[in-house]
Amino acid sequence: MKALVYHGPGRRSWEDVPKPELQAPTDAIIKVDAVTICGTDLHILKGDVPEVEPGRILGHEAVGTVEQVGAAVSGLKPGDRVLASCISACGRCSYCRIGVYGQCQGGGGWILGHLVDGVQAEYARIPFAGTSTHLLPDNVASDAAVMLADVLPTSYEVGVLNGQVRPGDTVVIVGAGPIGLAAIQTAQFYSPSHIVAVDFAASRLDAAKQFGADITVNAAEDVAAVVAELTGGAGADTAIEAVGVPESFELCTKLVRPGGRVANVGVHGKPATLHLEDLWIKNVTITTGLVDTVTTPRLLRMLAVGRLDTDRFITHRFGLPEMDEAYDVFAHPADSGALKVVLFS
Amino acid sequence: MKALVYHGPGRRSWEDVPKPELQAPTDAIIKVDAVTICGTDLHILKGDVPEVEPGRILGHEAVGTVEQVGAAVSGLKPGDRVLASCISACGRCSYCRIGVYGQCQGGGGWILGHLVDGVQAEYARIPFAGTSTHLLPDNVASDAAVMLADVLPTSYEVGVLNGQVRPGDTVVIVGAGPIGLAAIQTAQFYSPSHIVAVDFAASRLDAAKQFGADITVNAAEDVAAVVAELTGGAGADTAIEAVGVPESFELCTKLVRPGGRVANVGVHGKPATLHLEDLWIKNVTITTGLVDTVTTPRLLRMLAVGRLDTDRFITHRFGLPEMDEAYDVFAHPADSGALKVVLFS
Amino acid sequence: MKALVYHGPGRRSWEDVPKPELQAPTDAIIKVDAVTICGTDLHILKGDVPEVEPGRILGHEAVGTVEQVGAAVSGLKPGDRVLASCISACGRCSYCRIGVYGQCQGGGGWILGHLVDGVQAEYARIPFAGTSTHLLPDNVASDAAVMLADVLPTSYEVGVLNGQVRPGDTVVIVGAGPIGLAAIQTAQFYSPSHIVAVDFAASRLDAAKQFGADITVNAAEDVAAVVAELTGGAGADTAIEAVGVPESFELCTKLVRPGGRVANVGVHGKPATLHLEDLWIKNVTITTGLVDTVTTPRLLRMLAVGRLDTDRFITHRFGLPEMDEAYDVFAHPADSGALKVVLFS
Amino acid sequence: MKALVYHGPGRRSWEDVPKPELQAPTDAIIKVDAVTICGTDLHILKGDVPEVEPGRILGHEAVGTVEQVGAAVSGLKPGDRVLASCISACGRCSYCRIGVYGQCQGGGGWILGHLVDGVQAEYARIPFAGTSTHLLPDNVASDAAVMLADVLPTSYEVGVLNGQVRPGDTVVIVGAGPIGLAAIQTAQFYSPSHIVAVDFAASRLDAAKQFGADITVNAAEDVAAVVAELTGGAGADTAIEAVGVPESFELCTKLVRPGGRVANVGVHGKPATLHLEDLWIKNVTITTGLVDTVTTPRLLRMLAVGRLDTDRFITHRFGLPEMDEAYDVFAHPADSGALKVVLFS
Repeated sequence: MKALVYHGPGRRSWEDVPKPELQAPTDAIIKVDAVTICGTDLHILKGDVPEVEPGRILGHEAVGTVEQVGAAVSGLKPGDRVLASCISACGRCSYCRIGVYGQCQGGGGWILGHLVDGVQAEYARIPFAGTSTHLLPDNVASDAAVMLADVLPTSYEVGVLNGQVRPGDTVVIVGAGPIGLAAIQTAQFYSPSHIVAVDFAASRLDAAKQFGADITVNAAEDVAAVVAELTGGAGADTAIEAVGVPESFELCTKLVRPGGRVANVGVHGKPATLHLEDLWIKNVTITTGLVDTVTTPRLLRMLAVGRLDTDRFITHRFGLPEMDEAYDVFAHPADSGALKVVLFS
Repeated sequence: MKALVYHGPGRRSWEDVPKPELQAPTDAIIKVDAVTICGTDLHILKGDVPEVEPGRILGHEAVGTVEQVGAAVSGLKPGDRVLASCISACGRCSYCRIGVYGQCQGGGGWILGHLVDGVQAEYARIPFAGTSTHLLPDNVASDAAVMLADVLPTSYEVGVLNGQVRPGDTVVIVGAGPIGLAAIQTAQFYSPSHIVAVDFAASRLDAAKQFGADITVNAAEDVAAVVAELTGGAGADTAIEAVGVPESFELCTKLVRPGGRVANVGVHGKPATLHLEDLWIKNVTITTGLVDTVTTPRLLRMLAVGRLDTDRFITHRFGLPEMDEAYDVFAHPADSGALKVVLFS
Repeated sequence: MKALVYHGPGRRSWEDVPKPELQAPTDAIIKVDAVTICGTDLHILKGDVPEVEPGRILGHEAVGTVEQVGAAVSGLKPGDRVLASCISACGRCSYCRIGVYGQCQGGGGWILGHLVDGVQAEYARIPFAGTSTHLLPDNVASDAAVMLADVLPTSYEVGVLNGQVRPGDTVVIVGAGPIGLAAIQTAQFYSPSHIVAVDFAASRLDAAKQFGADITVNAAEDVAAVVAELTGGAGADTAIEAVGVPESFELCTKLVRPGGRVANVGVHGKPATLHLEDLWIKNVTITTGLVDTVTTPRLLRMLAVGRLDTDRFITHRFGLPEMDEAYDVFAHPADSGALKVVLFS
Repeated sequence: MKALVYHGPGRRSWEDVPKPELQAPTDAIIKVDAVTICGTDLHILKGDVPEVEPGRILGHEAVGTVEQVGAAVSGLKPGDRVLASCISACGRCSYCRIGVYGQCQGGGGWILGHLVDGVQAEYARIPFAGTSTHLLPDNVASDAAVMLADVLPTSYEVGVLNGQVRPGDTVVIVGAGPIGLAAIQTAQFYSPSHIVAVDFAASRLDAAKQFGADITVNAAEDVAAVVAELTGGAGADTAIEAVGVPESFELCTKLVRPGGRVANVGVHGKPATLHLEDLWIKNVTITTGLVDTVTTPRLLRMLAVGRLDTDRFITHRFGLPEMDEAYDVFAHPADSGALKVVLFS
């Protein structure tokens, strides 16, 4: 079969590889129906995620049809159409037992396209399949569902839920890439008064408006002044970091009001400065986290009844064999306008 | 009357000053019965809190007897014995309305001995007296109650409650001065499995044992290794920072398990480094805060029924005129063994 | 001045009474700009609330302009336009100190038009004015604001917040009068998948649809079957009781799924049967409560930015002298189609 | 092998039955090391639980040694000593995924000794063994651990956690049998000011004192008056129902203060009267529930470090062949003084 293989920093190819086989009784093999590319895949290709070894098939967001299940998989059978979550959950460790699958200690967590072969391929092996996939209702399209494999639950859980967005709040979201836009969308589940989007790119700020931000600010401007004016000097109730650099995190800690929340979603490679000399007295809560995908069933329910619009994320659609082109388009959003690309088998 | 007056960095004196008078209809005047000195008073004397102006009477922790009340004070009358809280609450602003008095926007917050004259004096003016004092039952001694003016609610609210200590948890408390010891004491309200105290001073670690820590570690040792061994490699459920320097904060973020909490109680003068390159994926919650004293009624109930031992904090007792000596003893705990000193009129 | 006076069961009149005066230093006198009538006023007139004594001026929901303030009132001055909340808060008792004003032990709670004279009058005395009123921004109309005196915070706090409505949930609201409709509206703050409205009156079910219910069921039908089909047999996540009779409460406990919430908002005059033989094993949470109006500032923020539509509640507008007609219209909604009526001075 | 078999109301025997075998790949077979009898077993024997069919082996609380595991069981191997929880968890359904195992929809929940054969036997089949057992550390004795199979997590989760006991609170526990005593013990995890135990039997009230209640009241007395005096007229913060009859539940709703919690733990066979005419305005939260055993790991940690005394529950110890005598002793606590009995193989 064909798969997208990482060959070290800067090198990937869509090439022939052996079809995956069951390795554990908890595995399933799926035929990939729809798959997407994540900003994290680009990080891997830059060499920023050294634990990914050359030869690894990338990808951690797919919808597929079950081909084969191991002896210990219950609740799944060949022919079932499923969402394969970016997080694998062993289902048994102390973290999985309370819904914190992202911190799985039993061999799961983020492993697909990272520590084991991923889903940017014609077929994929899904570890812990019984506790790491979601059956899809007929009325949910595969491309819509694949937006629930990572980007939407990540922004919702790590940004909006950790940030405790509430009706009437002022929420600032720093970074208007796919993760920031998904935070803008899911923040609206809680009816805030204002969603302020911050980014350097005008095109992204335009997208932020379309996704529901009522105020956009160029990051080069005095963002703190805008937020202060909007809130009578108080500051934001919640600030969500959706970039992954020290500056954006530090901006969030500056924008938040006393008693407010800073929810970090961005993937960071460097430390930030925490201004405790200002913050110690400010009753601030700062959270970090990897997605658990514990809200995926909830998001699927909303999708199934038409209360979640995932189409707006999908700017480009390809056939699986066009994987190289899809990567090029996704890697150059300034030129292509890409948010999320979906490839179909 | 006599009062302890700040005359700029390094200079204080117990001297004659005019007796305070009612300035607002929400004020009360109390005759001070018992008062204590806080580590923050020493910071002021070092010049670390520049907003304190020369001429200011220090002190924010007292028990007193009401002498006079303003026209707008209800629920208090001359002769009542009250605890004057370190936090004044206007009772009307959006923060006070939900119990977050430390962030009062109506003229309160930490003002006593800071922005207005304090309580290390024979008499004191208590602003917003109706919402900033607590009537004391007869069976609660004044020196016991004065421990509830700041140190106990601070460690309880900002350390233990923000840190969400739960039964069976492993809690690490970095710093075993009065604030750290109060955190050790109030953490036990929630029956953790282990309380690990960390400090450089052997005498403080001894005190930590007496206050209920079951494990003590010298900060010069490999604290992370001790905590890892204790928790099967996982890390602490909660780490409480009770020092106020970058190193102790950074240690806390290193000791905490995925999904754990870091509660900062220390007063910081410098920024710390936040290792987001490690923490972004770890589901960590970091909190800061000023005490609200919203738990003071709860602590008073526990004190009144004998379920809170405050005596262990009080190492030295003085008469009010011995204020200078009391400051000297409190300022040199390595020599004096002082934890908290109480002065009685 | 003129006021609506209760003269015992079945007897009310719009008549001349003395203008109110300050009685306590915490009082304010307002000139009433807009006032509404509550279902509770009709209960009083039926004699169902025996603690209301003949001679009492009714009404607990008004917007007015401050005429005079007592010596102890801060933050208010003559000329200010304010919302007078249905709940008075002393601001000092243990309940008020944590935002539970409805249970005020200091002389507040629901007293207006109940234990003291109310606001269906040209002028009204507002006790504890500093902590029981909300300054109105210029861009908030008086008739819109008066919807935030009782009906909206009641349904939001006691129904939606107590019921913990979450995105993707199925919410059933039993009763589609003004309280039920306000619950339908404020439940949407949290983006449930389904809002099911239940009532006997077709006209109310039509209104429920317009307020945002996606499914309506006549209470004479098999409501449990409808909810079961909608939820794959599970039951509702939250059931909100908005009637006040045993049957509707019992229906709620039957409709809720294991682990779900029943939030009672209705005012009850009789006991209900609690089927503990079924419910003991079902992980159900049942809540009751009086509104605290602690969310009024939040609702005001939403109103001020155009994210809360209160106009849909107001079916009839009158001048204050038309009080009798307004009562007649409001008391016969089946004929008049009345939801809320507003009277303007 | 020998097992305790239910033969219809009033009839049980310790008799020869076939040794259990693996039926599903998720099963394990354990050799029973220690087992106890639950009040629920007595209910079954009275015929109160009709879904238990004649021929059923009773018992849902055991410690055993793994003999054999199915192909799909991970994390367990022959020779492991495990606690078999009263609740079986499929680990895959929407309830299990968030830690609510008691409501398992995948074939688990309370099934042992109820819907499938139980553990009062020499050997037992444990369904969903990987997610329904807990490995025991060497320093935890089997008889101590067996107290964590049901009685302690039940009282802790359904009584104390649902009842939200907090430091300084007044907690009333109605019923001082094993469940009530376990509630008294685990309520102390949170350092309440007062624990009031209520029962009709003087011997049980004595036991309540020994378990940590500071106040005991005979249920025939005016309990409400005692609680009112203790709380300045307010009422209890939390009332825990640990009997299972309408009268005790109704007493709880009468004893609780405005804003307080009633946590039902008792197993009820009849409806109760809910006095909504009083409670609608009182901000009361009422909870019901079946244990999830999600706190068992936490309780095991406390047991392992010596912070949980389970010995005080165990009044009688027997060999497994003395099952009949053990039942007789347990069924007549008034004569035998039995709290919990443990049988060892």
